Amino acid sequence: MSIASGLVCPTPHAVADRVQLGHGSGGTLTAALLRDHVFPVFDNPVLRQQGDGAVIRSLGPTLVMSTDSFVVHPLEFPGGDIGLLAVHGTCNDLAMMGAHPRVITAGFVLEEGLEVALLDRVLASMGRAVRAAGIDLVAGDTKVVERGRADGLYVCTTGLGARDPRLAPLPSRARPGDAIIVSGAVGRHGMAIMAAREGLAFEAEITSDTAALWPLVDCLAHHFGDQVHVLRDPTRGGVASALTEIALASRVGMRLAEERIPVPDPVAAACAMLGLDPLYVANEGILLAILPAEQADRAVELLREHPIGAGAARIGTVVEEHPGIVTLQTPLGGTRVVDLLPGDQLPRIC
Amino acid sequence: MSIASGLVCPTPHAVADRVQLGHGSGGTLTAALLRDHVFPVFDNPVLRQQGDGAVIRSLGPTLVMSTDSFVVHPLEFPGGDIGLLAVHGTCNDLAMMGAHPRVITAGFVLEEGLEVALLDRVLASMGRAVRAAGIDLVAGDTKVVERGRADGLYVCTTGLGARDPRLAPLPSRARPGDAIIVSGAVGRHGMAIMAAREGLAFEAEITSDTAALWPLVDCLAHHFGDQVHVLRDPTRGGVASALTEIALASRVGMRLAEERIPVPDPVAAACAMLGLDPLYVANEGILLAILPAEQADRAVELLREHPIGAGAARIGTVVEEHPGIVTLQTPLGGTRVVDLLPGDQLPRIC
Repeated sequence: MSIASGLVCPTPHAVADRVQLGHGSGGTLTAALLRDHVFPVFDNPVLRQQGDGAVIRSLGPTLVMSTDSFVVHPLEFPGGDIGLLAVHGTCNDLAMMGAHPRVITAGFVLEEGLEVALLDRVLASMGRAVRAAGIDLVAGDTKVVERGRADGLYVCTTGLGARDPRLAPLPSRARPGDAIIVSGAVGRHGMAIMAAREGLAFEAEITSDTAALWPLVDCLAHHFGDQVHVLRDPTRGGVASALTEIALASRVGMRLAEERIPVPDPVAAACAMLGLDPLYVANEGILLAILPAEQADRAVELLREHPIGAGAARIGTVVEEHPGIVTLQTPLGGTRVVDLLPGDQLPRIC
Repeated sequence: MSIASGLVCPTPHAVADRVQLGHGSGGTLTAALLRDHVFPVFDNPVLRQQGDGAVIRSLGPTLVMSTDSFVVHPLEFPGGDIGLLAVHGTCNDLAMMGAHPRVITAGFVLEEGLEVALLDRVLASMGRAVRAAGIDLVAGDTKVVERGRADGLYVCTTGLGARDPRLAPLPSRARPGDAIIVSGAVGRHGMAIMAAREGLAFEAEITSDTAALWPLVDCLAHHFGDQVHVLRDPTRGGVASALTEIALASRVGMRLAEERIPVPDPVAAACAMLGLDPLYVANEGILLAILPAEQADRAVELLREHPIGAGAARIGTVVEEHPGIVTLQTPLGGTRVVDLLPGDQLPRIC
């Protein structure tokens, strides 16, 4: 998540005198930390853009920059590892700004005693992801800290991309009547991490969805251009938090139909067992797109032609009523409000 | 240090099967890690530039990008803190490429339980440094890990700048006959950290030299332009490692005169007491400039007009003999070879 997102904090949490795990959740505690402690220090027009990355007009008309730290535990999990996540996550933040990722940098903090073989696997993953995305890793840095001062390795990636002239997505551009589309199944990454961390065995293995989303963005840009009003990857805080942030930024309401949200059976079963809501579980390879309702069916169809978009679905509608609030209609006809998480449902998910 | 520097590794250290503290030193162990494990995975023309940052020609003719992780311990020390260091360090890497720093991003890893008051002081330092440098912090990210999985806070900053058309410094441009200039006293940062960490009391307090070096680069660019052959900030590994890397990249030798190297008395005394060589101690607010000998006196004079350049001195000469080797002439007429450190003299210095 960009430092810039989360500017709109709906609840007046005060930050306590010590940092809590929830301050890293991407939820309201993170928003409060940014609002009260970070933005007042660094306030500037670029930060105020509130995107997943920053448009750097002073250095070129179309440059976009984004940064992300990765502290996922465990370092390797079904479907990926921290290296794959670090490349995909930062490239996806650029893609959600409508920017084509071009180069990336990586800063590593290694813990003394880390197995070099594990480091090699993570680097190999990053290399594969970088080549698959058609980008270059152009600079990096390595620091080592004593045993017990990290957890294997942390990596911070920063991406630079060029804004695609066909697109101008913004969290504030959702309009009443727009359709809300998700590009694939919800909840896989978070539950894959949870299963790996806790050693849980579910009937079917849940794998992370980690993937580079630029090909889907490119497809939407080609067919719908500027009609793509909003793009967002629902990572920390899940679909619920991402949509609530958009509803707040656009001053619109949203209505989701629960039975339309694609939750794989193993994810649903694992969530039920653990008392978690898949709408709040982190994803690392799906996007939310908001565009005019008349384009929705075609958009879903086009997304489904991509392997990572095969599970695309229209899950809801933007409405004029209850601005800033996302509601979920249950199959039985009930309605409940979906809100931002205060802290982590699952810490260290990315 | 950029991932790109240290490409030239003079000694064939093999990386063991576990990461050691020395792999983060910026010395030959770091170089071996990069050579054997990182470059083969990410090899590309930009990485091969071997600079402190990367010139991103694909996105603009003059863009330069650099990244650095900061893990300094303790977080606050005489003369600065991790926040000041994180802004200065990354901006200085850009400046050493002849690039004017313009924007910066920051990725934080916070340890659960960190005092928010301490975080606020670090953020305030970063804010002051950002404003003093005339740059904007444009994006960021915050993650929190459990107690015992970090050491207060780590931060990774990435900078983007515009290459100054007056300058084209490269580690490979040192020429026999050139003068080697240092912009200020040597050894302050490392010894300030050492004193703070070990609770040592010296007769006079040693403060870190942390400072933004762009004003000095701007001055040199104005007066000498392209005659500034090499710029380098001697951080991890100190003056000795920085000059050895340049000698290797330029295939030249270097002769330093020990009595001309400005080492403050308290630094010299502390080094003597601890058995350290000030030439290997990290600096965070001085630069090495290599330019034609006939410009050397004027360059020193001009640098001395700046508060942070007041201690500037000509410390040696580039020679044709013994390429790749830096020698030090002692006041008594002896000569010794200055080499790269294999590992850390002081770990977690930045």
